[in-house]
Amino acid sequence: MDLFPDIEIVKTAAARIAPYVHRTPVFTSATVDRICGKQVFFKCESLQKVGAFKARGAVNAVLSLAESDFQSYKNGENCVITHSSGNHAAALAYAARCRGIKAHVVMPENAPPVKKAAVAGYGARITYTESTQEAREKALDEIVALTGAVFVHPYNDYRVIAGQATAALELMEQVPGLTTIIAPVGGGGLLSGTALSVSALQPGTEVIGAEPEGADDAFRSLQAGKIIPLTNPRTIADGLRTSLGDLTFPIIYKHVGAILTASEEAIMEAMRLTWERMKLVIEPSAALPLAALMTKTGRVKGDKIGLIVSGGNADLDHPPWLKS
Amino acid sequence: MDLFPDIEIVKTAAARIAPYVHRTPVFTSATVDRICGKQVFFKCESLQKVGAFKARGAVNAVLSLAESDFQSYKNGENCVITHSSGNHAAALAYAARCRGIKAHVVMPENAPPVKKAAVAGYGARITYTESTQEAREKALDEIVALTGAVFVHPYNDYRVIAGQATAALELMEQVPGLTTIIAPVGGGGLLSGTALSVSALQPGTEVIGAEPEGADDAFRSLQAGKIIPLTNPRTIADGLRTSLGDLTFPIIYKHVGAILTASEEAIMEAMRLTWERMKLVIEPSAALPLAALMTKTGRVKGDKIGLIVSGGNADLDHPPWLKS
Repeated sequence: MDLFPDIEIVKTAAARIAPYVHRTPVFTSATVDRICGKQVFFKCESLQKVGAFKARGAVNAVLSLAESDFQSYKNGENCVITHSSGNHAAALAYAARCRGIKAHVVMPENAPPVKKAAVAGYGARITYTESTQEAREKALDEIVALTGAVFVHPYNDYRVIAGQATAALELMEQVPGLTTIIAPVGGGGLLSGTALSVSALQPGTEVIGAEPEGADDAFRSLQAGKIIPLTNPRTIADGLRTSLGDLTFPIIYKHVGAILTASEEAIMEAMRLTWERMKLVIEPSAALPLAALMTKTGRVKGDKIGLIVSGGNADLDHPPWLKS
Repeated sequence: MDLFPDIEIVKTAAARIAPYVHRTPVFTSATVDRICGKQVFFKCESLQKVGAFKARGAVNAVLSLAESDFQSYKNGENCVITHSSGNHAAALAYAARCRGIKAHVVMPENAPPVKKAAVAGYGARITYTESTQEAREKALDEIVALTGAVFVHPYNDYRVIAGQATAALELMEQVPGLTTIIAPVGGGGLLSGTALSVSALQPGTEVIGAEPEGADDAFRSLQAGKIIPLTNPRTIADGLRTSLGDLTFPIIYKHVGAILTASEEAIMEAMRLTWERMKLVIEPSAALPLAALMTKTGRVKGDKIGLIVSGGNADLDHPPWLKS
C-alpha cells in the first residue's frame, strides 16, 4: 500500500481525491508583481476544503486504506486517529467523513477554541490531554489499543505526501512555464510532494522551500545532509513548528534547490499584503513563500514564479500586526 | 451621451470596460449553504480592480466621455474629478489612468491614511478640505472652474449605473437559474444597475436590496414612493451612508422587489463568517446581502441565491469584532 510516491502514484492520488477536494484557483496581483519585479502566481490552498492543502493528503491517505488495514473487530467500526491541534486534525476528520468512518483526534486541552470547534464540526471524537509529547502519545496509543484505529501521520507518510503533491500538479497545469515554485516547509509533506511532482514533470523548474528564520531546521538539515531536529521554534507561523521526517527529508534533499528563510517581520508583511491587496485571508505559514520571495528576490531564478499558499486558517481575533 | 441605460447600453458598457476590469469569480461555501438552507453564490467584486465594483462604473463613465465633454483648453489636459473618501475615489483615479488622463479627488483631510494612499497610488491629485459638504463642494467647483475637469458622480450618473450593471450581467452568465439576487444599497448605483440587468434578461429573478437598519433610507423611500434623504446614519457599513439619487431611485422603485435591513450585529457576523469560512476579506458594506439573507431567510424567494459582494477594502487595523 504505502509505496514511494512516483508520479504515477501522485496522478492516481489526484484522481482518487478529486471528488472530495477543490481544484483551487490561481490568483495574481499587479501590485505584488510590481513589488517583486516578477510574474507571481498564487495557488490558493487557503480556499481548499478545511482551509488548507492538508485536505489533499488526509483524504488520499484515508481513501487509500484497505479494509485489512483496519482492526475494526475491536469496536465494530473502522476509524483513523492522529494527534494534532492544527490543520491536519480538521483534514483527517473531514477525510474520515468522506469515507464514512470515524476519526479520533488527540489534542492538547489548551488548543484554541476555534480549532476544537473545527475538528468537532467535522464529526471527530476529540480526546484532550496535557500539551506534552508524552501525554499525547500515551493517549493515542491507548485509543489505538482500544479501538484498532489506524494512525495517519501529518506528513511522514507516503500516502499523505502523494496527496500534497497534487497541489503542484494542478498548478503546473493551470500556469504553464513556471520557472520556480516555492512552498512553505514545516514537516516537509507539502514541499516533498511539490518536489516530486515538479521534478518528474518539469525538471527545469526549480523548487524552493520557505521557512521562518526562527524555525530553520530544513535549512540546517539541507546544509548538514541529515535531519537536524527543530528545537525551541520561535515563529508566528504555527504550522511550521515541526521537524522534517525520515520520509520527507530524502526527497527534499534530492529535489529541492534551496531553502530560503524569512524573518518574522517579513512573514507578517507578506501576510498583511495578501490580505490587504489580494483580499485573501491567509494564515502566517502560508505567507512564507511570498515573504521569502520579497526579501530574497535575487535568489529566485527566472521571472515566472508559483507560490503555494498553504492555508487560510488565521486567528481573526489576533492578527499579528495588532499584537501589542 | 448620457442615455438611460437599457440592456443594450449595459452590454456595450461590458464590452467597453472588459480590458480594464476583472471578470470576478463566483464562490460558494458548504457552511453558508447549510446555515441559510439555500444554495448561495457569492459574486466577488471584492476581487475587482481597486477592490470594489466601483471600478466598473468609473471606467465606463470615463471611457464614455467624448473629447468635447472636456474643457481641456483651460489647462492643456483632459481631467475628471470627484469628491469622495471611499471606493469611488480610487476607482475614478484608476479609470483616468486607464484612459491616460488626469484625475482630481477632493477628500476630507481626516480621511483614513490608507484611503489617501490608495488614491494617490493610482496617480490622482488630491485636494484636502474640511469634512463639511459645503467645503468639499466649494473646492470641487473651484477646481472645475480652473481646469475644466469633468465631474463624475459616484452613483447618480447613467454611465456609472450602466457600468455597475455589468456585475449582475456576469453573475447571470456564471450561475444560470438564480431565483433571487441581493445587492447592498447606499446611493443605489449597484442596486439600480443590478435591477436593470436582471429585469431585462431574467424577469422571473427577484432583485433585493440590503441595507443597514441604521441607514435605512432606501427602505423608507420605497415605502414612501419618493426619495427620503438619509439623516444621521449609524452603521459600520461606511459605503452605505448615502442617500438614493434621482436617477437611481426610479429604477429601484420600479424593478426591486424588496429592501431588507440588517442589524449591526448581523452585518458584523456575516462579515466575520465570510472572512473565517470563505477566507475572503470583505468590507462591512459587502456583508449586507449575506446579513439580510441570514436574518430574513424567509423573506427571500427560492433556493438559489446570488449575492453581490461589493468590495474588500476593509480596515485591517480595526476589524469591527475587535472594537472595544
